[in-house]
Amino acid sequence: MMERINNMNDMQLLSRNIRNKGKTIGFVPTMGFLHQGHLSLISKAKAENDTCIVSVFVNPTQFGPHEDFSAYPRDLERDAGLAENAGADVIFCPTGAEIYPEDYRTFVEVTELSAILCGQNRPAHFRGVTTIVAILFNIVMPDRAYFGQKDAQQAFIISRMVTDLKMNIEMKIVPTVREADGLAMSSRNSYLSSDQRKAATVLFRSLVHGRDLYRAGQTDPLILRQEMIRMIKAEQLAVIDYVELVDPDTFAAVGPQSTCYLALMAVRIGKTRLIDNLLFTPET
Amino acid sequence: MMERINNMNDMQLLSRNIRNKGKTIGFVPTMGFLHQGHLSLISKAKAENDTCIVSVFVNPTQFGPHEDFSAYPRDLERDAGLAENAGADVIFCPTGAEIYPEDYRTFVEVTELSAILCGQNRPAHFRGVTTIVAILFNIVMPDRAYFGQKDAQQAFIISRMVTDLKMNIEMKIVPTVREADGLAMSSRNSYLSSDQRKAATVLFRSLVHGRDLYRAGQTDPLILRQEMIRMIKAEQLAVIDYVELVDPDTFAAVGPQSTCYLALMAVRIGKTRLIDNLLFTPET
Repeated sequence: MMERINNMNDMQLLSRNIRNKGKTIGFVPTMGFLHQGHLSLISKAKAENDTCIVSVFVNPTQFGPHEDFSAYPRDLERDAGLAENAGADVIFCPTGAEIYPEDYRTFVEVTELSAILCGQNRPAHFRGVTTIVAILFNIVMPDRAYFGQKDAQQAFIISRMVTDLKMNIEMKIVPTVREADGLAMSSRNSYLSSDQRKAATVLFRSLVHGRDLYRAGQTDPLILRQEMIRMIKAEQLAVIDYVELVDPDTFAAVGPQSTCYLALMAVRIGKTRLIDNLLFTPET
Repeated sequence: MMERINNMNDMQLLSRNIRNKGKTIGFVPTMGFLHQGHLSLISKAKAENDTCIVSVFVNPTQFGPHEDFSAYPRDLERDAGLAENAGADVIFCPTGAEIYPEDYRTFVEVTELSAILCGQNRPAHFRGVTTIVAILFNIVMPDRAYFGQKDAQQAFIISRMVTDLKMNIEMKIVPTVREADGLAMSSRNSYLSSDQRKAATVLFRSLVHGRDLYRAGQTDPLILRQEMIRMIKAEQLAVIDYVELVDPDTFAAVGPQSTCYLALMAVRIGKTRLIDNLLFTPET
């Protein structure tokens, strides 16, 4: 029977008791409205640890002033059922007032990496993400934390934070889960109309197109990028935020001697901003 | 026999073992060149915990580009002897290369509170302090951490960070230790020439003067501040950085309804910048 905890002191106490018994904690932080992507994180966390803790918290500090914080989809009852079925032992749902009291002042920031790619159009976004993740790590005290490869830049930045601040936590990055037509699972997919839903496949289609060209011998990143951009622009409902190729180990711009690229993109379909990414490696 | 640890992984492992045995850790982070102020923190940490861990690390990120990082006094052998005599079980001396590798990017910042008082003349100082303290907390994993009231703003900002990030650590703020003539103990006192050393007593003298006036019924913060400034200006070798009165619970400017003031000052004696503070409360 999954336990539900709404209070951070209760959560911290429970985690401490679990750790004191020598049991391990796998942690899946989420903003709720769970989909198959989240459930794969939960299953993996449960398989690799004694206890699986899932948090549901729509974090205000990672939304910009004109973004979808209040509209972000929420359904805690559904989330609780899905999390329990996937193997969660505890679902932790703190309140905004408890996490961010009025005199709250502290932020954790990973410089440089938070200003590129998604950070260009969402300037305070990653600062909000690293701050809430640091807070949740201090409350939940996990041995291992699970994040999706779909949010590649987020996973990279959080890994940097964990390393830099010497947090004793193992980061686990789990492959993207996709719909049958390739669209990466995302809570924001629920915003899409039927026409937009069809158009949204252009993210994954263009990524696969780029990888196909790469595997056929086209290794010039400028050409690969142009080819992906061309395909996205052919989709009338799609507006590009960015399309970039970076070194997957550093997120730096790729150079001529690179042998492996991470292609990342953010594309707007109507008012919905979607992201996706794919590693370009030689066929194995 | 005190243990010496230079490697952060060894330190983290030892701390985890101590915690797993149900023993408590009291932690005293220092920049070394220990004086009686540090030793009172160490004695208290030892008295209140099973294990007392002292770190010695001159933290580069809290020094400005034109400050005294390279000149800061260092004497690790002397520190080790003093720490052991005061009750330390472990002295932890990490290297700069280990704490801040080349690709280091993460900073912890307490906004607003880091920009006032000492933050005005030392813009990145408190960001450096909160960052290194967060790192050391993650390595040492203390139950309680000990800081001196002499660095009142630092203690207040770190307490804010601990609360905001939900760190499960009890902050202990320990009274300032003073020389016989009132000068607050500080590693930087070693910079002072004989004449400067005499002039340096003006910080405490002016604070006591302000408190005397307060206790004699003068509660107007503007007048109290002017009186302290007047006394400091009478000392030829002293140059004021700031003299301020704040609410000790919030560090906000004091208003007419305040009943208790914290007076803080930074004063330069030659090239040496000294700080001190005193709580103005009704006589008890």
